Amino acid sequence: MVLKDARPFGPATGLSCRECGTVYELGPIFACSECFGPLEVAYDFGEVRRQDIESGPTNIWRYRALLPVPADVASKPNLQPGWTKLVKADNLAAELGLRSLHVKDDSGNPTHSFKDRVVSIAVEAARTFGFHTLSCSSTGNLAGAVGAAAARAGLDSCVFIPANLEEAKITMAAVYGGRLVGIDGTYDEVNRFCSELIGDELGEKWGFVNVNLRPYYAEGSKTLAYEIAEQLGWRLPDQIVIPIASGSQLTKIDKGFRELIKLGLVEDKPYRVFGAQAEGCSPVSAAFKAGQDVVRPVKPDTIAKSLAIGNPADGPYVLDIARRTGGAVEDVDDREIVEAIRLLARTEGVFAETAGGVTVGVLHKLVRNGVLDPEAETVVLNTGDGLKTLDAVAAEARPTAVIRPSLEAFRTAFAN
Amino acid sequence: MVLKDARPFGPATGLSCRECGTVYELGPIFACSECFGPLEVAYDFGEVRRQDIESGPTNIWRYRALLPVPADVASKPNLQPGWTKLVKADNLAAELGLRSLHVKDDSGNPTHSFKDRVVSIAVEAARTFGFHTLSCSSTGNLAGAVGAAAARAGLDSCVFIPANLEEAKITMAAVYGGRLVGIDGTYDEVNRFCSELIGDELGEKWGFVNVNLRPYYAEGSKTLAYEIAEQLGWRLPDQIVIPIASGSQLTKIDKGFRELIKLGLVEDKPYRVFGAQAEGCSPVSAAFKAGQDVVRPVKPDTIAKSLAIGNPADGPYVLDIARRTGGAVEDVDDREIVEAIRLLARTEGVFAETAGGVTVGVLHKLVRNGVLDPEAETVVLNTGDGLKTLDAVAAEARPTAVIRPSLEAFRTAFAN
Repeated sequence: MVLKDARPFGPATGLSCRECGTVYELGPIFACSECFGPLEVAYDFGEVRRQDIESGPTNIWRYRALLPVPADVASKPNLQPGWTKLVKADNLAAELGLRSLHVKDDSGNPTHSFKDRVVSIAVEAARTFGFHTLSCSSTGNLAGAVGAAAARAGLDSCVFIPANLEEAKITMAAVYGGRLVGIDGTYDEVNRFCSELIGDELGEKWGFVNVNLRPYYAEGSKTLAYEIAEQLGWRLPDQIVIPIASGSQLTKIDKGFRELIKLGLVEDKPYRVFGAQAEGCSPVSAAFKAGQDVVRPVKPDTIAKSLAIGNPADGPYVLDIARRTGGAVEDVDDREIVEAIRLLARTEGVFAETAGGVTVGVLHKLVRNGVLDPEAETVVLNTGDGLKTLDAVAAEARPTAVIRPSLEAFRTAFAN
Repeated sequence: MVLKDARPFGPATGLSCRECGTVYELGPIFACSECFGPLEVAYDFGEVRRQDIESGPTNIWRYRALLPVPADVASKPNLQPGWTKLVKADNLAAELGLRSLHVKDDSGNPTHSFKDRVVSIAVEAARTFGFHTLSCSSTGNLAGAVGAAAARAGLDSCVFIPANLEEAKITMAAVYGGRLVGIDGTYDEVNRFCSELIGDELGEKWGFVNVNLRPYYAEGSKTLAYEIAEQLGWRLPDQIVIPIASGSQLTKIDKGFRELIKLGLVEDKPYRVFGAQAEGCSPVSAAFKAGQDVVRPVKPDTIAKSLAIGNPADGPYVLDIARRTGGAVEDVDDREIVEAIRLLARTEGVFAETAGGVTVGVLHKLVRNGVLDPEAETVVLNTGDGLKTLDAVAAEARPTAVIRPSLEAFRTAFAN
């Protein structure tokens, strides 16, 4: 494959196997042919200076020198995600008894979830590899992110979903005008079908963002680490609470922090990484608590559908990181998730999707159990938007009163 | 009333009547006691420099020197709205035959509509006046913006809605934990009730953002003008298409452009302002086309509910501005609104609410009719988020196919 640009992947030098270290040329591959381990992007960064980053655009491309993208990426048509708010959450901190708390609120992304970060990197890889169609299997956030990103980039898209998905999610996935294919089957069957398609001539020239483009795609989550550090004033937090679906995001945030230390962009200091799962899909939390290295797959049953991956590929790496940094992995039940969504909305005006309910709920639980240090600087992630999971809170977020339009009626209701 | 801060309203010097020019002290008043005309904020800006703005935060507070807010506003707890994307819309431009088009996409605000801008200014005024409760009547976007802003600011809130509002909107309005009062009646009855409440002791110390705080609130829309100019490289667009509900936003964007010229922050050049309405609520468009100065109220019937104000208070000012700048006011029907939402999503990956369908639809119509100059630099506003008006496109945004999970089934569907 001939690459048009001299350095279409910027500082990236190759793909290396996370298990055996074998190095490959940059290409649309995702598994080691020696040991079947996952591949990830390796870099030669050279010097990267704070002022170069600070003078960049207010989106993830300010970190282009740390990502597998070309130097002119910011001028190409893409969704320009990132640089979302790091909300100083004094009200929530007071309620939980924490000294310093920030919420990294990724609902501010173009399609209102962190998926815009990872998909935008995948789009650049797709362009470079000459793929004409962007694809994925999805049950929600990813479908919208892929549809929107492909539309802006001028690529075709073909998104696969379980046919019995909620109507609202189908609308969101279809509105960007790409192909949307409902599959009569479970999400697992959709995934298996996609794997077949990649091996078939039908899927030639297709970039499946979370399969054959996964090594590039996954790097997008590093930008969460970069932004948090820069927005704290080029400082790492002491403690961070991150949701776990496949576990990829957590491992990449850790990778991002370590890169910043290595490059001298932040002071080298310890930080503790905490993983958050829903009780109804908590294989990593279960393994952590049992002191095991192996993650035993489960059948998900939780309202936090965007985290409902029963067999998380990066689970073992998450366990390593939580143990190495002195963190933990914890879970909360659906009841606690709903309460946490409402707590965050009531204290900070941030309406999170269920995944944000999981992280805030786990934060709360870790404080209650004395696992988190209430004096340490803490960051909690909200990776999606409450508008996409309205059903979770619909039964409880109700009018306080319904009255006739008269002062007397209001006075009566008001007196209660 | 004793104000705590020496200059709680920053550069604002008073309130002046837009009709007779009578000047009042800054206070929670909104109508001229001489002529009942609307009051608006008057300023003494002094010198304002580009570099001071550019070194400010990436939200509306970078323009604090041009707003009725204290100098330290950015450090107070608020939603920090603004600095939303100005999307270079090359795909849409090509489709419509325009040389240069940008979409100012306010769906990126914290509660996903431009209302966060205006409410954030009202919150500061409420604090200054010692109000403890933030209130409004609303059928959607404003309710969420007020609930969220009050939560973050530590104010109580009490939002009034028609009791028969769609369930999704009720959930959104209630999740922030303030009081949400359903009124058995139409939106007009809700409004009349709020007017009564302001005059009653029950409503003492209450800031109704769009009534007794309206002069401050409305100024928030100026930030759209400032951001567009700065994001274009400190330049005014040649043509801009703005939605009309009450008409306030359009008049404030015009005011913002004129301020920038007066302060020497942009070159003085002509610009044309175009107003956009839904055909089912088009009193300003009708007056414009009939060459009249008076706007005759209508009973709204359109899917663009966030623009459905049948008796727009600022209608006559909108007519003045459209005529003075060589612009126009145009309307599109519900069918065209839906098509425009889908067009914008398909070409730029931006999922707009119905109000964005109105502006993009009107843009399209004005190009078709030869009213807009296709060679001139054009900006169109999207003021809200498609996730809030999913019903508008639900019937058409459907899967392209539903198949069994097999390559054969996909091949069959694919061949068609």
